[in-house]
Amino acid sequence: MSAEYAPLSPPKRLLMGPGPTTVEPRVYGAMSKPIVGHLDPYFFQVSEEIRKLLGLVFGTKNEFCMTLSGTGSAGMEAAVANFVEPGAKIAVFANGLFCDRISEMARRQGGQVVRLEKPWGQPFEDEEAAEFILREQPRVAAFVHAETSTGALQRGHAICEAAHQVGALAIGDCVTSLGGMPVNVDEMGIDIAYSGTQKALSCTPGLAPITLSPRALEVLRARKSAPATWYLDLKLLDDYYAGAHRYHHTAPITLFYGLREALVAIAEEGLENRWARHRTNHLALVAGIEAMGMRMHVAPEHRLWTLNTPCVPDGIEELKVRKRLMAQRGIEIAGGFGPLAGKVFRIGLMGASSTRENVLLLLEALEEALRAEGFQAAASGKAAAARFYAAA
Amino acid sequence: MSAEYAPLSPPKRLLMGPGPTTVEPRVYGAMSKPIVGHLDPYFFQVSEEIRKLLGLVFGTKNEFCMTLSGTGSAGMEAAVANFVEPGAKIAVFANGLFCDRISEMARRQGGQVVRLEKPWGQPFEDEEAAEFILREQPRVAAFVHAETSTGALQRGHAICEAAHQVGALAIGDCVTSLGGMPVNVDEMGIDIAYSGTQKALSCTPGLAPITLSPRALEVLRARKSAPATWYLDLKLLDDYYAGAHRYHHTAPITLFYGLREALVAIAEEGLENRWARHRTNHLALVAGIEAMGMRMHVAPEHRLWTLNTPCVPDGIEELKVRKRLMAQRGIEIAGGFGPLAGKVFRIGLMGASSTRENVLLLLEALEEALRAEGFQAAASGKAAAARFYAAA
Repeated sequence: MSAEYAPLSPPKRLLMGPGPTTVEPRVYGAMSKPIVGHLDPYFFQVSEEIRKLLGLVFGTKNEFCMTLSGTGSAGMEAAVANFVEPGAKIAVFANGLFCDRISEMARRQGGQVVRLEKPWGQPFEDEEAAEFILREQPRVAAFVHAETSTGALQRGHAICEAAHQVGALAIGDCVTSLGGMPVNVDEMGIDIAYSGTQKALSCTPGLAPITLSPRALEVLRARKSAPATWYLDLKLLDDYYAGAHRYHHTAPITLFYGLREALVAIAEEGLENRWARHRTNHLALVAGIEAMGMRMHVAPEHRLWTLNTPCVPDGIEELKVRKRLMAQRGIEIAGGFGPLAGKVFRIGLMGASSTRENVLLLLEALEEALRAEGFQAAASGKAAAARFYAAA
Repeated sequence: MSAEYAPLSPPKRLLMGPGPTTVEPRVYGAMSKPIVGHLDPYFFQVSEEIRKLLGLVFGTKNEFCMTLSGTGSAGMEAAVANFVEPGAKIAVFANGLFCDRISEMARRQGGQVVRLEKPWGQPFEDEEAAEFILREQPRVAAFVHAETSTGALQRGHAICEAAHQVGALAIGDCVTSLGGMPVNVDEMGIDIAYSGTQKALSCTPGLAPITLSPRALEVLRARKSAPATWYLDLKLLDDYYAGAHRYHHTAPITLFYGLREALVAIAEEGLENRWARHRTNHLALVAGIEAMGMRMHVAPEHRLWTLNTPCVPDGIEELKVRKRLMAQRGIEIAGGFGPLAGKVFRIGLMGASSTRENVLLLLEALEEALRAEGFQAAASGKAAAARFYAAA
């Protein structure tokens, strides 16, 4: 057997794609600590600390902050399956892959899905968003705060306000924003916000933080039919984590240890400092990209700080560029999906990956890889970013 | 913040409950290795190695062996949600908590649930099992191979054979048997078998191995309606792990590293050696329990080697005994649920926890704790177990 199964030795990658991102080194340390049982008081102490820290990171006073035993997509499924009852209308703001995923999940719950569509990467204006909701009078409105497939931010204020005006709940997907840029669930008015651990929280993938407003909690508790999912039934999970600690499933204790450590790291850095770090590195990257003569896909005011989508220069095959980055530098970035396939690069600067060193290294490596494919940069991206940092 | 959030320092527990069990130390080492992306060829190399090793441990030639990004209960939900279509009849063999969970999940999928019931801990005889299926003519039959709530093993041969006779698929829950005692999916005839990683695989919780027979795969591929769950949709997951590697969700890479290591450890120990180790330690524990004058809840021929359920002696409050074990020795064992509440202890001997040292230590500690509660052992359990080992 030993010949057949060599020791695990993963290649060293610099993860600068749309996630997973580089794991904060201290997270691995926490995950090496011996586990306790899933009903051990120590486990509930850890999950309670996580709950409080999630409140900080989500920017919410919600009592209900929980960690689901699945990835960000499990967070999405929990949000949809618990709040879209069969026959209920859900209004989806559709301008990227993850809005489509929400739509698909809602259909599977028997929801009546209505969509306001825009080209991928173009956010919805406040007025059109509100009009759509007032016209459709849905029970739930869903938007993606930070679209990983496009690099665009969606302001949530008008959506949540209009939703509340018609008595609907607002779902906000914060997978790629949480921990890297302002989320402020309470201020935005989101009723159900979820995320994943492998993006700007800089943790390993496998968990999905979720928070519910008191309004959402009331709807959840009043729900008569059980949701199709037992594994992600938030009422049952609430009985496990809160109050009675009634056994539901065996929580992945080691991942909880890691998440606690990642959240403590955020608290120690300071959430606003962390946002500022992500913003600065994003702006430096953009300065470098634009100096090279490339365009960004998303308009400046709507860009994510965590995920950057420069357009692929004309005549360049993006896959070749990415393969070169991987083969020669061990750097992972991603390409576009669906309507953006072949048209954009997706460059993540999240958590431990969002550093000055990485921005400069990536710009140098990208320039080299593009040059090898025949693209001549107008000026050095790395030099432009260095100037940006010097001036910042 | 640093005062508020002290460094993570879990208490040292000896995990001898129904799971999670002690994690194989080398698993922590593997989980400390840097992650790669969820679409990285190296990740698919790891998931492919896991697939092959799972075939070995499940005792199957099935091509379809997969690891789900959730705990054992997610494995159960995947089995039920993908194979119990709305309106379809499912026959459940109900004699413990996890059979009830399968029933509940099936109802949530709109399945028509029929149950053959027995007191908790009493397995179904071949003949009555077959009769039930032939009479009910279900589309799916489900049983729990190793009932964690009772410590009883359910033979699956007659159930699977009868299921196939009526054209039904057989689901077998192998959460507490896989890696610790013979499962032999092919020989038993199970079509859909799933497990969890935190029991006899001796890994951290968070993943659910699952395997499908060619017959189950055919049914899956022919299914017209999408299952309610997107996260656990096995068709979509098959597109991710096999063939096209089409993006579905971000697999928890670190947990996969850990599972690979745990499975390699099993392959190196030798599956049959591992079963023998679990059997010997189980028998030694029983010798000790019986020497003390206690009874086992399950008849000898139906006992699990991984989870032991001695009856609580008359007049003893089991919770006090468990609290004493935890407080004085840091040993976790569990009590009974539902009809077995207060009536049995549940003592796990799984994976790295299944050792001679642990058996002897537990017997000594249990005897001491029972004595403190007023129970006088007929003879030393530890000495009886030591004699058993000497003779074995």
